Amino acid sequence: MSSLANQLEQMESHRSLFENAVRALPLPVCPAFGSADALQAVRFAGTGQVLASRDAAAVAERFAQSVKASGNAVLRAEGVAVGRVSGKRVAVLFSGGPAAGGHNVLCGIKRMLGADNTVLGVKGGPKGLLAGKLFEVTDAHVAEILNTGGFDFLGTDRTKIKTPKQFEQVKKTCVEHQLDAIVIIGGDDSNTNAALLAEYLFSGIKADGSGVQVIGAPKTIDGDLQVPGLLPISFGFDTATRIYAELAGNILQDTRSSLKYWHFIKLMGRSASHVTLEVALQVKPAVALISEEVAEKRLSLGALVDEIVAAVVSRYRDKGLKHGVVLVPEGLIEFIPEMNALIAELNDLLAHEADAFAALAVDARAAFVAGKLTTAVAALFRSLPGYIVDMLLAERDSHGNLQVSLIPTEQLLIDMVRARIKETAPDVPFGSQHHFFGYEGRCGAPTLFDAAYTYNLGLTVGALILDGRSGYMASVTGLGQGGQPLAIPLTGLINVERRHGKDEYVIEKALVRTDAPAMRFFAGRRAAWAADDLFASPGPRQLWGPAAHQLPITVALNDGLPSLDFKLG
Amino acid sequence: MSSLANQLEQMESHRSLFENAVRALPLPVCPAFGSADALQAVRFAGTGQVLASRDAAAVAERFAQSVKASGNAVLRAEGVAVGRVSGKRVAVLFSGGPAAGGHNVLCGIKRMLGADNTVLGVKGGPKGLLAGKLFEVTDAHVAEILNTGGFDFLGTDRTKIKTPKQFEQVKKTCVEHQLDAIVIIGGDDSNTNAALLAEYLFSGIKADGSGVQVIGAPKTIDGDLQVPGLLPISFGFDTATRIYAELAGNILQDTRSSLKYWHFIKLMGRSASHVTLEVALQVKPAVALISEEVAEKRLSLGALVDEIVAAVVSRYRDKGLKHGVVLVPEGLIEFIPEMNALIAELNDLLAHEADAFAALAVDARAAFVAGKLTTAVAALFRSLPGYIVDMLLAERDSHGNLQVSLIPTEQLLIDMVRARIKETAPDVPFGSQHHFFGYEGRCGAPTLFDAAYTYNLGLTVGALILDGRSGYMASVTGLGQGGQPLAIPLTGLINVERRHGKDEYVIEKALVRTDAPAMRFFAGRRAAWAADDLFASPGPRQLWGPAAHQLPITVALNDGLPSLDFKLG
Repeated sequence: MSSLANQLEQMESHRSLFENAVRALPLPVCPAFGSADALQAVRFAGTGQVLASRDAAAVAERFAQSVKASGNAVLRAEGVAVGRVSGKRVAVLFSGGPAAGGHNVLCGIKRMLGADNTVLGVKGGPKGLLAGKLFEVTDAHVAEILNTGGFDFLGTDRTKIKTPKQFEQVKKTCVEHQLDAIVIIGGDDSNTNAALLAEYLFSGIKADGSGVQVIGAPKTIDGDLQVPGLLPISFGFDTATRIYAELAGNILQDTRSSLKYWHFIKLMGRSASHVTLEVALQVKPAVALISEEVAEKRLSLGALVDEIVAAVVSRYRDKGLKHGVVLVPEGLIEFIPEMNALIAELNDLLAHEADAFAALAVDARAAFVAGKLTTAVAALFRSLPGYIVDMLLAERDSHGNLQVSLIPTEQLLIDMVRARIKETAPDVPFGSQHHFFGYEGRCGAPTLFDAAYTYNLGLTVGALILDGRSGYMASVTGLGQGGQPLAIPLTGLINVERRHGKDEYVIEKALVRTDAPAMRFFAGRRAAWAADDLFASPGPRQLWGPAAHQLPITVALNDGLPSLDFKLG
Repeated sequence: MSSLANQLEQMESHRSLFENAVRALPLPVCPAFGSADALQAVRFAGTGQVLASRDAAAVAERFAQSVKASGNAVLRAEGVAVGRVSGKRVAVLFSGGPAAGGHNVLCGIKRMLGADNTVLGVKGGPKGLLAGKLFEVTDAHVAEILNTGGFDFLGTDRTKIKTPKQFEQVKKTCVEHQLDAIVIIGGDDSNTNAALLAEYLFSGIKADGSGVQVIGAPKTIDGDLQVPGLLPISFGFDTATRIYAELAGNILQDTRSSLKYWHFIKLMGRSASHVTLEVALQVKPAVALISEEVAEKRLSLGALVDEIVAAVVSRYRDKGLKHGVVLVPEGLIEFIPEMNALIAELNDLLAHEADAFAALAVDARAAFVAGKLTTAVAALFRSLPGYIVDMLLAERDSHGNLQVSLIPTEQLLIDMVRARIKETAPDVPFGSQHHFFGYEGRCGAPTLFDAAYTYNLGLTVGALILDGRSGYMASVTGLGQGGQPLAIPLTGLINVERRHGKDEYVIEKALVRTDAPAMRFFAGRRAAWAADDLFASPGPRQLWGPAAHQLPITVALNDGLPSLDFKLG
């Protein structure tokens, strides 16, 4: 075999040139933790800030032990820990969709816990915890996964631990594996789950009557888990948006090279438009729709089409441009009040008339539904193209909700824009392409920011466990000043929400605030971006060199930072 | 305004952190050209190799002046030019789809021609040449576009210059703008066009009876413009495949994280499967289909489905894996002999029965067509899902060909695989997602290889013009030994091909050779990649640091290089 063929076989199984190189990237450490070579455990103490959610009274009742212990006080690392804790057994799991940096959280935990404690990886997410699929994580594993993307070392799933039987199963796993702590790396729902588990496991689990600690870490590419002043951003958001921004930037460059297409790009991110806003700030496209603003201004589908048509027409007539890019957030449809009303009626209708609906021939279903909708909503329903109607009648998820990501919003907008232009400005050319960027962005190698941030989140999680804490989510603030490890009491974030007809305890998703600095900056520039090509191409994320050090623009603006540069360590 | 908001406005119009940084990247220069700071013009001399295409006799007749002058001899840079040529006016245009590095070709030309010659940019491709849309390129332009992606500085289009009237228009542009040379940066068709123009403009254009030189540069992300031993690869291929490979690698990591989907990824690249083969070698997926092999082995659509189903079933039953990735080349359909026969019959039928077909109601067309197809082909046509039939009957391009990129091959395969599994292995789970990666990859910032390669291609083009040559395509070989500038006589690559019922002179597309080293390496490893997850994630392309220096794997294997490292300069 040739020497090159030999080298190529050595590159299989996560041994690309890039993967080998990133494993050796040095990671900075928040000053509180000492230095990378001499990590130190820390004590946590109150910052003086106490959280009070809207439904604090109900929460204090439901989470009595947790709230009594934490007082909902925010903690920060303050001084070196007294004495060395050893012998702890800590299980770590990923929950929900993957996000870049998860591996580094695990690495940070393992490094902080050191050789005299044991870290166990849970295979396949919460389901693996129920089934007791645990294995010991070694230093060799850490060396293998450091700075690599995805959750593939452990896997993940979306099981919610909520039934009494499931709680019993977790207890059984704790006992069998002699666990002292569980770490849940996940989004809003998973951290709500962490709070419920923390309360359930608070005491009476081990032979001596003590409990099992539960700590959460804030993950989600959607960016909808953030707490002003306390949690700048969930991890994975930076990497995903940088991946999407590179692709959108490439496409913008293509539009001005090929001179013939409008590209409509739908971006993952479920309900919130943080991803779309960040990508818009990175690339400066002709149009970017922000769901939260659409809801706030109560814009109709027709009004959004008008906004896009205005850009298409004026760019052509004023500048001779036949091209542009429109960014569309995944969850847009649900934020258009008239569509929202339609979907809500449909969800109810399909739940209540499930049997009658299922019994109908497929092509009779639209008429059946239209006849049962209220008048205004029925008119909108009848005006939609057939493939959208099909989607609206498609299968619901396990919560009875429409799977919004299946609706081809980008195609719907293209078709409606094309029709409107034909009708009102037939001289204006309109060629189109559409894209959906989603899975490409969840498991990329972390940006330098996500790599450093998640490693320090992991160190914080580890330090909280060594400090005997439970019911907290780890955070790192002060991203421009070296990094300050924080612990946010989960119960301080929880409210009561009516879901599927009953009250549930939830951490509410943080949506884009239209009065926040990032949104105001965008609102101030978008007319100029629509009028002419002012786009930038942020390029592939760099792990080395002069372009490697960059914060998400939305985070820097909303936190009032003086530049995009971050400083951890 | 905040200081950050100010900085953000400064980043508009191609001023991202990344774009600012790449402009300052130093570029290596082939030893023949001296050094980056002291570029020198060179003389070209024969290498001793003379090209003889299959239809050399006919070509020598059609391109009489060009062949007489070049003797179809390959040239290489050999020694420093004697005396300095000045006062030349050179027009440069992009032709066809954009590819990363085009700007650097232009920069190389400008730098080699220096201050005492004039470079003119042609706006909007060949159409701009016909219309005389030329403007002077300055050193400031070069500083602005160096190392940036896309063709957006000039724009491009797909006009073919072939009618006598068009040739007259080019002549008019040459006279009006006092041109001494035209550079066409394009793919196989565009370089064929360059050969035709070189012949037409060979003499009798200027007042003194002399001609206008024409030089081509080899561009296409498809990689189907390459000449063994003489042209290692067309530019833009490396960047596009690295972008697709990053995304495919991210998705592979997602499959093993989420543990539930098979992702089918269609990759741009028109007919040839070079892109798919390169991406497969980068990421090592469970399945990658290579069109040329399908044609050679005369595989049916059913046989391809069987191959994928075998992987899905064995991975699940032997390893418990419910996930995987299948790479599908854009042009696959046309290489499946039975589909090829169907498409050929359809193309003929739709051309000959155009009026009758157009007069039919849309839903009557499939039956009309099925009734006129030969028996075997009609059976296949009737077995295809409705949306594929719709596509097969969709509008032809201006050459009367099916627009293959519109056919959702990836969805067709998913549907057929799902049906086959349900029928033959109903216990095996099969969740799926599909993607098409295309436009994302054409205008990304060039890799370090593409940046250096294209800059040296530009220097070679400039040197050929200063040396008075016409009818050549620039190339750089010896990618592991500093780089050897070459000039390939275009007429040596041209053959006669029957297209749309008449003979045309064409540079044939270079398809994947199933006996080439790259393909043999792939064939030797794919069973192992199908059996278990051995994938690698090549990560985002790096312009700085230890992972920046890498050649396309197919190029390195086919050229027999000892490693993936390249050395230019």
